[in-house]
Amino acid sequence: MATVSPLQSQFAQRRRPSASGPRLETRFDRRLARILVHATNVFCDQGYAAASMRDLSRASGVSLSGLYHYFESKEELLYLIQKHTFSTIVDRLRARLDDVTDPADRIRMFILNHLEYFLDNQKAMKVLSHEDDVLKNGFGARIAAIKREYYRICIELLDAYKLARGLEFSSRTAVLSLFGMMNWIYTWYNPRVDAGAAELAQEMADIFLHGIGSGASKGTQRKKLQYRA
Amino acid sequence: MATVSPLQSQFAQRRRPSASGPRLETRFDRRLARILVHATNVFCDQGYAAASMRDLSRASGVSLSGLYHYFESKEELLYLIQKHTFSTIVDRLRARLDDVTDPADRIRMFILNHLEYFLDNQKAMKVLSHEDDVLKNGFGARIAAIKREYYRICIELLDAYKLARGLEFSSRTAVLSLFGMMNWIYTWYNPRVDAGAAELAQEMADIFLHGIGSGASKGTQRKKLQYRA
Repeated sequence: MATVSPLQSQFAQRRRPSASGPRLETRFDRRLARILVHATNVFCDQGYAAASMRDLSRASGVSLSGLYHYFESKEELLYLIQKHTFSTIVDRLRARLDDVTDPADRIRMFILNHLEYFLDNQKAMKVLSHEDDVLKNGFGARIAAIKREYYRICIELLDAYKLARGLEFSSRTAVLSLFGMMNWIYTWYNPRVDAGAAELAQEMADIFLHGIGSGASKGTQRKKLQYRA
Repeated sequence: MATVSPLQSQFAQRRRPSASGPRLETRFDRRLARILVHATNVFCDQGYAAASMRDLSRASGVSLSGLYHYFESKEELLYLIQKHTFSTIVDRLRARLDDVTDPADRIRMFILNHLEYFLDNQKAMKVLSHEDDVLKNGFGARIAAIKREYYRICIELLDAYKLARGLEFSSRTAVLSLFGMMNWIYTWYNPRVDAGAAELAQEMADIFLHGIGSGASKGTQRKKLQYRA
């Protein structure tokens, strides 16, 4: 994983041994951040289900009992990775949207923010895509809440765009099509062939914005295709 | 899995015990088809890596040694499922394209064919999406060849559309965006909320065709977004 620093800064704010001074905190958090990076790699390469705490111990160089000092289960570990990823994407997006008012540009910013994070953290994104439905109960509910928030931001951006342009189409299908376009790149992105995040974001935004902008507004252009059963 | 029959018909043509008469063949193939359906369910629910031949034996009600009569490894089993799925999609597509000449309609047919198969075989598609990079060497190469063929058909359809309309855009980004839109539905499709394959195909084709058709042709509409680093 190329980018380690965001994980490290996130976990610098997490779970502090109660009676510890600043130096001990730092050491605790630094080790947790390192473990999370190794865990992301192991989950990415072996899959979450097949990876054991023993594999995580070997990859991170931390003993099994040492690992349980940082989290109680493999599930909590996956939860921490997911929580960090989605929270970071949402926080960055909100900060960037503050500066943009045009409805189309706000959707472009959404796409750019998503693709930039995605391409900088491809292993984490692959783990998230693959292990989408693993977390249950409390952990699962907390992740689902962040995802719902992210989905709603996108729906709101689309609704504002529809209102501004007088468009009518299914926001649900449009938003989920957009997520598909963006998230699927973990299966095909090749940095030696493909453009960077900014150019890709522009290409996808062109396809998406013109796609939702022209066809659906005219109504008459919608066409039913005859096909054999 | 709702649709069992395509698997059964496919495997009716496969691997016949050499000295067997017609009745024995049928029984062999029927059992193999049943095992493949169970295997798809097990891989979908537990993940390929975590599923053992013992799990497959339990789910299918066939003994371990019985299973090895039909395939030599878990990897071969995954190969058979993938081969069947991609071959079926490509074969159906080719047959349907025979009747369609308009370049836009041919792309619409591609989308419809993909989504119909996808929604009829959601468990198999989830397994394929998740275990995309598991197969190595000979099995992997044979699946990669079918996928490449499918990808090339889509590129050809797009190139014909570009030629007919005088458009210019990256076919690679467009095709892979389209695959993303279509394939991502395994994460969100809910038959109680979402439309069927025909309507979804129309919505996605509207977004995609208008998206690639309007923005990129005019050139001047392409817009660079300023953003903070």
